[in-house]
Amino acid sequence: MIKSQESAVGRDVAAELDRADVLAEFRERFVIPDDDVVYLDGNSLGRLPRATLARLSEVAGAEWGGRLVRGWDEGWMELPVALGDALGSALLGAAPGQVVVGDSTTVCFYKLVSAALDRAPGRSEIVTDVENFPTDRYVLEGLARARGGSVVWLRGDRAAGPTPEAVAALVSERTALVTFSHVSYRSAHIADMAAITRVAHDAGAFALWDLSHSAGSVPIALDADGADLAVGCTYKYLGGGPGAPAFMYVRRELLRHLRQPIWGWLGRRDPFAMEQGYEPAGGVRSLLSGTPPVLSLAGVQEGVRLVAEAGIERIRAKGIALTELAIALTDARLAGFGVSVASPRDAAVRGAHVALAHPRARSLCAGLIARGVIPDFRRPDVIRFGLSPLTTRFVDVWDGVEALRDLLGGGSGSMAGV
Amino acid sequence: MIKSQESAVGRDVAAELDRADVLAEFRERFVIPDDDVVYLDGNSLGRLPRATLARLSEVAGAEWGGRLVRGWDEGWMELPVALGDALGSALLGAAPGQVVVGDSTTVCFYKLVSAALDRAPGRSEIVTDVENFPTDRYVLEGLARARGGSVVWLRGDRAAGPTPEAVAALVSERTALVTFSHVSYRSAHIADMAAITRVAHDAGAFALWDLSHSAGSVPIALDADGADLAVGCTYKYLGGGPGAPAFMYVRRELLRHLRQPIWGWLGRRDPFAMEQGYEPAGGVRSLLSGTPPVLSLAGVQEGVRLVAEAGIERIRAKGIALTELAIALTDARLAGFGVSVASPRDAAVRGAHVALAHPRARSLCAGLIARGVIPDFRRPDVIRFGLSPLTTRFVDVWDGVEALRDLLGGGSGSMAGV
Repeated sequence: MIKSQESAVGRDVAAELDRADVLAEFRERFVIPDDDVVYLDGNSLGRLPRATLARLSEVAGAEWGGRLVRGWDEGWMELPVALGDALGSALLGAAPGQVVVGDSTTVCFYKLVSAALDRAPGRSEIVTDVENFPTDRYVLEGLARARGGSVVWLRGDRAAGPTPEAVAALVSERTALVTFSHVSYRSAHIADMAAITRVAHDAGAFALWDLSHSAGSVPIALDADGADLAVGCTYKYLGGGPGAPAFMYVRRELLRHLRQPIWGWLGRRDPFAMEQGYEPAGGVRSLLSGTPPVLSLAGVQEGVRLVAEAGIERIRAKGIALTELAIALTDARLAGFGVSVASPRDAAVRGAHVALAHPRARSLCAGLIARGVIPDFRRPDVIRFGLSPLTTRFVDVWDGVEALRDLLGGGSGSMAGV
Repeated sequence: MIKSQESAVGRDVAAELDRADVLAEFRERFVIPDDDVVYLDGNSLGRLPRATLARLSEVAGAEWGGRLVRGWDEGWMELPVALGDALGSALLGAAPGQVVVGDSTTVCFYKLVSAALDRAPGRSEIVTDVENFPTDRYVLEGLARARGGSVVWLRGDRAAGPTPEAVAALVSERTALVTFSHVSYRSAHIADMAAITRVAHDAGAFALWDLSHSAGSVPIALDADGADLAVGCTYKYLGGGPGAPAFMYVRRELLRHLRQPIWGWLGRRDPFAMEQGYEPAGGVRSLLSGTPPVLSLAGVQEGVRLVAEAGIERIRAKGIALTELAIALTDARLAGFGVSVASPRDAAVRGAHVALAHPRARSLCAGLIARGVIPDFRRPDVIRFGLSPLTTRFVDVWDGVEALRDLLGGGSGSMAGV
C-alpha cells in the first residue's frame, strides 16, 4: 500500500485519515472553487463559509436595502456585544459581558494597551517578545514612546516560545503590562497563558493576550487562566473575511476601572442623546468608539457560528493530527533536502500550523504557489503550512509536502495522487 | 392644478419637478424595496446601490472565496489608497496621495487630532463648537484630558454656524487645533472652510474638517481652501453601507511631518518584512494601522463611483432644489402648526437636509415613522428631513410634509397623492 520507499505514510494513508475524519463534512460548508488549490494558508485568511455568502447578501439586500436606517433598532446596534458574547462563550472561555467586536486588531490592541498603561501609574515598562506579531510590536513601540516608557524585549528560543521563567526574569515593579501572542504567528508555539499571567500578576502588572492565531484553533480559557485583557483577529480560523473586525476582552472586574482612549459616541452612555460630555456606556460597550461595521460583523457571526458548531475540542484534535502528519512527512520526505521543523514537536504546545525552515524558503514558497500549493513565507527562512481543521484535508498536507519535495529535486511526480 | 388652498405647491408640482429632474434616472441605480417608505434619512444611512450588492457578492464569492489569500496581491492592498484617490479627486477637491480610507470616523478623527496635537508643542487648546457631531466632541474631550489640554467651546447661534469672526475671537497662541463639521449634522449649516482655515492658520493652529455631512452632497475644495486635515463618513451620501469605513485627508506638505498614534503594520514601510522597529510607510499609507476591511472598502468604492458619475455639481443643484421645496412647504403648510425652519434659509450656506423645529419633535417623528415616513429626531426639538439628491424625489418631500401636517391635525388625507 505504501507507494514511497522513503515514507511510512503514502497518500492513501492520508486519504484514509480524511475518510475517518469526523469533521470532514464541515469542508462542504465552505466555498471551494472548481479550480481549487492546495490551500495551506487558512491561518492567514480563512476560507469563505457558504452561510456567510448568503448572510452578506441578506444583510446588504434585505436589512440595509430594505429596512434602511431602521436596521439599527432591529439588531445592528446589538451586533458587537451579541457577537462578542457568542464568541466568548463558545471559543474564548469568557463569560458574557466581557467581549466585544469592532475595529481592527491593531486598533483594539492599541485601546487595551493604552487603557492598561493608564491604570499603572509609576510603571513604565511593557514586556513582550520579538516573536510577537509585528503590529503588536509597533503599537507597543508607539505607545511606549508617546508616554516616555519602554518595551522590554524577550529574545528567547523561537520554538520554545516565551516561558514563564524567562518572563519572570524580565518583570519588576516597573512593569505595567506583560503581553504575548497566545499562539506564535511564526512557530505556532502555544504560550502558557495561566502561568505567564500569574508571573505578570505577581509583579503587579496586567496581562494582555493576542489570540489571533489561537481563536478557533485551540481551546482558550481567558476567565479560568485569569487573563486581564485580550484581543484577536477574526479572519483567520474564525472565517470573518479579509480585514474583518477584531475582538477585545476585558475581565469583568476591570471593566469599570479601565478607560480606553478613543472616546466615541458608541462607547458613550445613551449615544443618541448626543449630549455634551463623555460618560462611558458602562460594561463592555465602553470599549466601542465608532459606528459598528454591520456587514463585516454579520460575516464574523457566521464564521463564529460554524466554528462553534464544529466544537473547539474536535477542531483541536484534528489540528494536532494535521500538524503531526505534516511533521512526520517532513521528517520522512523533506529532511534529506535540508528542511527542518521549526515548530514545537510537542503537540501540546503547538497550534494549528507548522513552520518549516529552509535557507531558500522564499523562492520555495514562490515555487509552491506556481504549482497551486499556497503556504506562506515568513522571513527569514520559514515556509508556514497553515492547517485549518475545518477545511484542510490530510491529503492537502501530503500534497503540499510532496510538492515541496518535487521543488527540492526529489520529484516523484506524486501530485496527481500516487 | 393646485389642489391645496394653503399652498402654492401641490403634489402635482412636485411630481413635475421629478419629471424634469436630470438625476431622476439615478434612483433606479439603487435598491428600492417593494414596500418602500418615504425615506428622508439618507443623511444618516444612504440607500444601497444595486452595483454594491453585486460587488459585495463578487468580492466575497470570487475574490475571497476563489482567490483566497492571493487577493492581497491582486488589488486588496491597494484599496485604501486607490479609493482615497478616487474619492479625493471626484468629491473632496484633493489631489492624489492625500486621502486614504479605513477605520471608523471616530478612529480616523482620533488619529488626526492626536497627530496635530503632537505637532503643536506648547499649545494646549482645541477650538470647536457645541454643535459639532458628538463623536468628535467626545474624542476631543478625551484627548484634551489625556494631554492636560482643554477644549474651547464655541456656543453660537445654531443656524448661523461657526462664523470666522466667532472663531477668531477664540483662537490665540494657545490654540493647537481648530475643528468643525463642514456641514452641521443638525442645522445643515455650511461652514466657511476657507475663511475659518485662514483664521486657524493666522493663529498658528491646524484646521481639521469633518466632512461627514458634506461629502457627496456639497462641493468640497480641501486643497484650494487650504485645509490641513479632514475626515468623513462614507455611509451617508456616499452610500457605503452601515458602519462603512471612513476617510482621512492630510495635506501633502504635512504628510511627512505628522505622525499618527496607532502604529500598526499596514502603516509601516514594507509591512510583510515584519521587522523590528516601526518606520512609517511614507505618504498617505502612514495613516493606516490595521488590515484593510476589504468587503467594506469595495462597498464604499461602488458608492463613490456612483456619486462621482452623477457629478457633485448636479447633486448640489438638486440638493438645493429639494431643500428649497421643503422650506417653502414648511412655511406654507406647517408654520401654522408651530413648525419652524431651523436650517439656514440661504441655500448657499445650507447642505442637503433641513431641520424643522417643533416642541413635540420626538413624538412627531415616531408618528411619521408609524406612517411610513422616515426622518430622524435630534434633541431637543428637531425633525431632520435628509434629502439625498440621488434617491429622494420631490414628491417624497411633499409627502413627508403632508404626513407631518396630518399628524399636527391639518389632515387633508393627501398621502395617496392629492
